[in-house]
Amino acid sequence: MVSGENMTDSISQLQRTLCRRQIDVLLVSQPENRRYLSGFTALDHSISESSGVLLIPKKGRSLLLTDFRYQLQAEEEAGGNCDILIYQRGLLPLLKTILGKMSVANLAFEADYFLHAKYLLLTKLAQSLRIQLTPLDGQIEHLRLMKSDEELALIRRSVALNETVFSRIYQTIKPGQTEIEVALALESAMRLLGAERPSFDTIVAGGPNAALPHAVPSHRPLALGEPIVIDMGLILAGYCSDMTRTIVLGTPDEHTVSLFRLVRQAQCAGLAALRPGVTGREVDAAAREVIKKAGYGACFGHSLGHGVGLAVHEAPSLSCRNRKLLRPGMVVTVEPGVYVKGWGGIRLENMAVLTEQGCEVLNRDTTFLDL
Amino acid sequence: MVSGENMTDSISQLQRTLCRRQIDVLLVSQPENRRYLSGFTALDHSISESSGVLLIPKKGRSLLLTDFRYQLQAEEEAGGNCDILIYQRGLLPLLKTILGKMSVANLAFEADYFLHAKYLLLTKLAQSLRIQLTPLDGQIEHLRLMKSDEELALIRRSVALNETVFSRIYQTIKPGQTEIEVALALESAMRLLGAERPSFDTIVAGGPNAALPHAVPSHRPLALGEPIVIDMGLILAGYCSDMTRTIVLGTPDEHTVSLFRLVRQAQCAGLAALRPGVTGREVDAAAREVIKKAGYGACFGHSLGHGVGLAVHEAPSLSCRNRKLLRPGMVVTVEPGVYVKGWGGIRLENMAVLTEQGCEVLNRDTTFLDL
Repeated sequence: MVSGENMTDSISQLQRTLCRRQIDVLLVSQPENRRYLSGFTALDHSISESSGVLLIPKKGRSLLLTDFRYQLQAEEEAGGNCDILIYQRGLLPLLKTILGKMSVANLAFEADYFLHAKYLLLTKLAQSLRIQLTPLDGQIEHLRLMKSDEELALIRRSVALNETVFSRIYQTIKPGQTEIEVALALESAMRLLGAERPSFDTIVAGGPNAALPHAVPSHRPLALGEPIVIDMGLILAGYCSDMTRTIVLGTPDEHTVSLFRLVRQAQCAGLAALRPGVTGREVDAAAREVIKKAGYGACFGHSLGHGVGLAVHEAPSLSCRNRKLLRPGMVVTVEPGVYVKGWGGIRLENMAVLTEQGCEVLNRDTTFLDL
Repeated sequence: MVSGENMTDSISQLQRTLCRRQIDVLLVSQPENRRYLSGFTALDHSISESSGVLLIPKKGRSLLLTDFRYQLQAEEEAGGNCDILIYQRGLLPLLKTILGKMSVANLAFEADYFLHAKYLLLTKLAQSLRIQLTPLDGQIEHLRLMKSDEELALIRRSVALNETVFSRIYQTIKPGQTEIEVALALESAMRLLGAERPSFDTIVAGGPNAALPHAVPSHRPLALGEPIVIDMGLILAGYCSDMTRTIVLGTPDEHTVSLFRLVRQAQCAGLAALRPGVTGREVDAAAREVIKKAGYGACFGHSLGHGVGLAVHEAPSLSCRNRKLLRPGMVVTVEPGVYVKGWGGIRLENMAVLTEQGCEVLNRDTTFLDL
């Protein structure tokens, strides 16, 4: 988590935006945004089961609204940053009382992380209090786009721990182990070494399973010579890492080596294009072009990369749909892949931070990158 | 997952509802509903990162729309039940083409699992095609409420496997082990014994941490004599289990034993009240009354239980807010708790299915229940 000072800065910036847009209070429901501005680390089991919301007034101290189950955690983690209120019968009744007391005229909410059914209920509440509702998206995500030095240091630690986990377990992988066994070994090591949790479900996919970009580890035993995609990340002090290696037990055949080199070449082309002032679309195209030219364009069906921070998938995306300019301080993945049904797949993923001139790759691990 | 026959029945029932309400197509976005009606098991990384939607027309075959990453999985799992279409540039452009071709006049969507921001985009699309949009919630959840014999058999298997995992690991727990180590041992055993995954983040909370109903396992070592809350569940063939035991290493002191007995008494009162024709509110009250009478009412701040099926938290809830009648075939948890800040907590949770006459407890494990 970022320190109190960074948090105060972010809240001040946000409050200036609220004042400018004549919004009295912003209701923050998105879990990473909530954490970013309060320090409260609870997760939502799902969007329908929120562990709380944050109210940011245009002036003054924030309020964190949560329920009994999270009371002690909220007091401990966020008590220094905001006032904590507990709702007994759901959020809306408490919200009604508070908004009434605060004499709010204009309430903004995150339409990007607010269920439409809940919006209909919120609308009724707002009408009864004569409050205007304003959808306000991307303001906090915008603050989160450019990482502070402190955040970048945390991301570096997360990346380094992820690599430590990978290299320890990599040495122990043997033919005959199942994908699930390797995935469990990785996830256990993450947590025993201090990670809060994996940043997403670890992927270990061998042979034909590696043709599924989002494969789920199975009981299939790993075999000599086949490509094995390992996509893994963890959360440390709130910040995510994300790395993919494709490994081979024993000696890869020529076909595997040639596809591996192709994907690595595409990754290098992407990293070479990654600098401030270009769009996500252009970086995606630089890497994709390499794979297309080799005749494998149809085998690379996902985008090149995504931002990483408090969330493992956040802005900016490196995809044909992102026409916005990249800026220094952004952190992204660069992860081209080639997937061939029935055979398998190769994906390589590193993280990089944009600098003033270009980018710096955050990964040190070179397993198989020199193949 | 339920078999093709049950799935066809559910779709027919749903299609009758669509016809009756003059809806041409229902857009299913909720992941468990999508799985229930298609067999497609992919998860959403978050609601903002959907792995696909299902279109149920009022007549005929369903369509599953997903992206490149899930194509092979969708074909394998759901190809027999619906047609699969892949979107290249996000869902909406493909949806527009399809809805145009199908000459849809009225499109329903799940407002309970649809982001408001996405709803605004869907509204534009609908206007351009002169389609009326109808929020339609709870129809599929309603079908999922009463478990078929086949589903119940799967739930029993899930509960049994969860207990096997618990009893194996329980025997190995020693003072000095950390909460995280025990949680990892439980989650590893789940997956090695065949579970798809834990149904929620396993809770292992000793001493003061046990006072947090939703504690996150920490590096704190477990100590002799303190209450240790273990709340665990898994997913097997799609169906969830959920069980809480509070254990003590060594000999519990009198205070612990008396609180333990109180919670067990409350649980028995809840189970005794659990039968068709009463409301969730009444069952909650029956258990809560026991704890209140003992002077611990304020220490039991969450509801008594929740439904379990494809989702670990689903309808019906056993809470003061549920005034609907319970019916045979519903499956719920009964999980009273007492939490004391600084000391710790006790929670006991079993699952039960409502029968014609009352209920049947699905758990066999009696660890510490006879304390």
